[in-house]
Amino acid sequence: MGLIVLKFGGTSVGNVEKIRNVADRIIEEKNRGNDCIVVVSAMGKSTDELVSLAKEISPNPNKREMDMLLTTGEQITIALLAMALSEQGYPAVSLTGWQAGIKTESVHGNARIIDIDTARLESELGKGSIVIVAGFQGLTKEGAISTLGRGGSDTTAVALAAALRADKCDIYTDVTGVFTTDPRYITDARKLLSVSFDEMLELAHLGASVLHPRAVEFAKNYKIPLEVRSSSEREAGTVIEEEVNMEQNLVVRGIAFENEITRLTVLGLSNSLSALSVIFSELAKNHINVDIIIQSTVADQSTNLSFSIKNEDLIETLKVLENCKQRLNYHQIESEQGLAKVSIVGSGMISNPGVAAKMFEVLSTGNIPIKMVSTSEIKVSTVIEEEKMLQAVQMLHKSFNLSGIPVES
Amino acid sequence: MGLIVLKFGGTSVGNVEKIRNVADRIIEEKNRGNDCIVVVSAMGKSTDELVSLAKEISPNPNKREMDMLLTTGEQITIALLAMALSEQGYPAVSLTGWQAGIKTESVHGNARIIDIDTARLESELGKGSIVIVAGFQGLTKEGAISTLGRGGSDTTAVALAAALRADKCDIYTDVTGVFTTDPRYITDARKLLSVSFDEMLELAHLGASVLHPRAVEFAKNYKIPLEVRSSSEREAGTVIEEEVNMEQNLVVRGIAFENEITRLTVLGLSNSLSALSVIFSELAKNHINVDIIIQSTVADQSTNLSFSIKNEDLIETLKVLENCKQRLNYHQIESEQGLAKVSIVGSGMISNPGVAAKMFEVLSTGNIPIKMVSTSEIKVSTVIEEEKMLQAVQMLHKSFNLSGIPVES
Repeated sequence: MGLIVLKFGGTSVGNVEKIRNVADRIIEEKNRGNDCIVVVSAMGKSTDELVSLAKEISPNPNKREMDMLLTTGEQITIALLAMALSEQGYPAVSLTGWQAGIKTESVHGNARIIDIDTARLESELGKGSIVIVAGFQGLTKEGAISTLGRGGSDTTAVALAAALRADKCDIYTDVTGVFTTDPRYITDARKLLSVSFDEMLELAHLGASVLHPRAVEFAKNYKIPLEVRSSSEREAGTVIEEEVNMEQNLVVRGIAFENEITRLTVLGLSNSLSALSVIFSELAKNHINVDIIIQSTVADQSTNLSFSIKNEDLIETLKVLENCKQRLNYHQIESEQGLAKVSIVGSGMISNPGVAAKMFEVLSTGNIPIKMVSTSEIKVSTVIEEEKMLQAVQMLHKSFNLSGIPVES
Repeated sequence: MGLIVLKFGGTSVGNVEKIRNVADRIIEEKNRGNDCIVVVSAMGKSTDELVSLAKEISPNPNKREMDMLLTTGEQITIALLAMALSEQGYPAVSLTGWQAGIKTESVHGNARIIDIDTARLESELGKGSIVIVAGFQGLTKEGAISTLGRGGSDTTAVALAAALRADKCDIYTDVTGVFTTDPRYITDARKLLSVSFDEMLELAHLGASVLHPRAVEFAKNYKIPLEVRSSSEREAGTVIEEEVNMEQNLVVRGIAFENEITRLTVLGLSNSLSALSVIFSELAKNHINVDIIIQSTVADQSTNLSFSIKNEDLIETLKVLENCKQRLNYHQIESEQGLAKVSIVGSGMISNPGVAAKMFEVLSTGNIPIKMVSTSEIKVSTVIEEEKMLQAVQMLHKSFNLSGIPVES
């Protein structure tokens, strides 16, 4: 007996048949005596379809109206799922983001949740209803519909779990859990039964698309235990929680990778003192995410700055840099596309200084040049050529003994 | 300079190209110096698609959830239209029903508007924005999304015009105005430049689908001049207003017709005193619209009652009658499908008692048996066999001199 938040992504509710299956999963949980809050995404590719409709109207659609448009996707799913539950005799009520009391910043396309007024959610739960909430959406204080950005439904689920002090938040998806690396590409990949929030955070940031990093951060801050599990298979998933019992030898816990990376280099920055803050605050204003940043000062006192971005942001980034050329007073800009990022993650690294060195050695053995490096306490990221990405992952997966390990309990 | 409400139906916004055309129409109106409130329906057949999705989930979907589902259709259109206007440099803001302050009864599927809180509409107009409102939808006092039923977008437009004391309400549609009869079937049909509210009300009730009767009633009560006009052609439409200058000889102003009618006869009602109220209040509770009602008492003191309904309501109606068989104590029920209703409408009839007689004579000349008759001060309706419907309309259109008349000014 408790309160459980269940989140189902777009592929889990991709058609009527799948929505019925989701209803069955929810009913199982309800029949165990639990109160259920369910968060759903838009059906399958429906968000993409709405985006292309908007692009037909305008190459750069008004952001407020884009949110108005996209939020219909989740609204369709909540209605159909509530119908499916009613049809089976289980009282259910669907709520849009604003009906569920989800308040966000006054931003469109990528708003953060500020507060959740839980009165209505609690009142509906009090009536014994299964409450179905549209993921990814909220309301600004001006009364406009906003969206939380990609992966926003995960965030909705975790935020609701935090606001309602839920006992658990289950993220149902099309994979059975979190793997040592992406099982679609690396057949040796193994499911992990548990990872820590920090590890998951690194894995999520590094392109393991199973959970959105904002959601993991939220869960970490509010200490909400998450479980990533399959919406079709009935097996246990991966639990993400504060403390994980780790075997000492499991220094590296997972390998993440991501392609379509571009490296930009700003050459001959003369005003290096303010340059970094100017560049990265301008990029942030334009919602361009910068990943790895490397600065080097050469003998003649001018500074070179390299950073990595997604390929798709290249044109916008060049425009931003062009616009602040006077303030920055740089010499020129070089860009290199066709790159990929490969990272190793594991809490055990902190006490194991040789891990990065071993990674570089493995890549060197594979004749894979490293373009950029970035490290944190629990991860090492390298940028390499895109075409060598899978080879690198395969080699690292083997070298760090991930292929052979049994899933831990 | 004034405030104009413009309403565009589903076919006028059926695709991106058409939405752009609608944006152009609005911009013309805006450039004349008018403030514009625009009400739109869901794109083309999108509502029907959502309905079939729901029917896949449940043969009889939960009504609250049906409203949650269907209102996404208009929400998509308002967002796209606002984007199209922004794209052309005209500030526009889309509002859902609840954002526009439209409050309805706590009913789903067919709610009436109770009140409109115009604060937000006025604030947006004050900023110079074109305000795009989702038709067909509102919010109950419990905070649930409701819909106004078929033709509800017309009602939204007129209600907004009334609440904001608009100077005019233009209903843009796929026809160029109100015709003497349906031009799709009767080539002689002529466009009328003006009709009175009452005439339009009868025409609308009688199946002239160009305007929803609730909207006409609303406009009549609040004295909002309506104009029905084409969203593609630039010609003048039909003005619907209180006073219409009529030529004396134009006794019949239009001919409406509608097929898929069923006549039900309840035979041998012994308790005729309460029977009518029981039957029709039960049918109303089940949202079954009854049209023509005829009661006859025969020699043996028992009463026969006939009434007409839409074919699609037959099964539900029989169920309702079965359920109150004990209270009604009737002998049996007969039903006849495959019928149609043909009506003549015109304010001039009041002072012209021979009109009904002439109608019956025309039908008799055409060898068309009349199954039911119903009259009001400004219309005569007959129920005849469906297969003779168009023949009857053609004959009546000619006999009442509608084919030859010039459109009046």
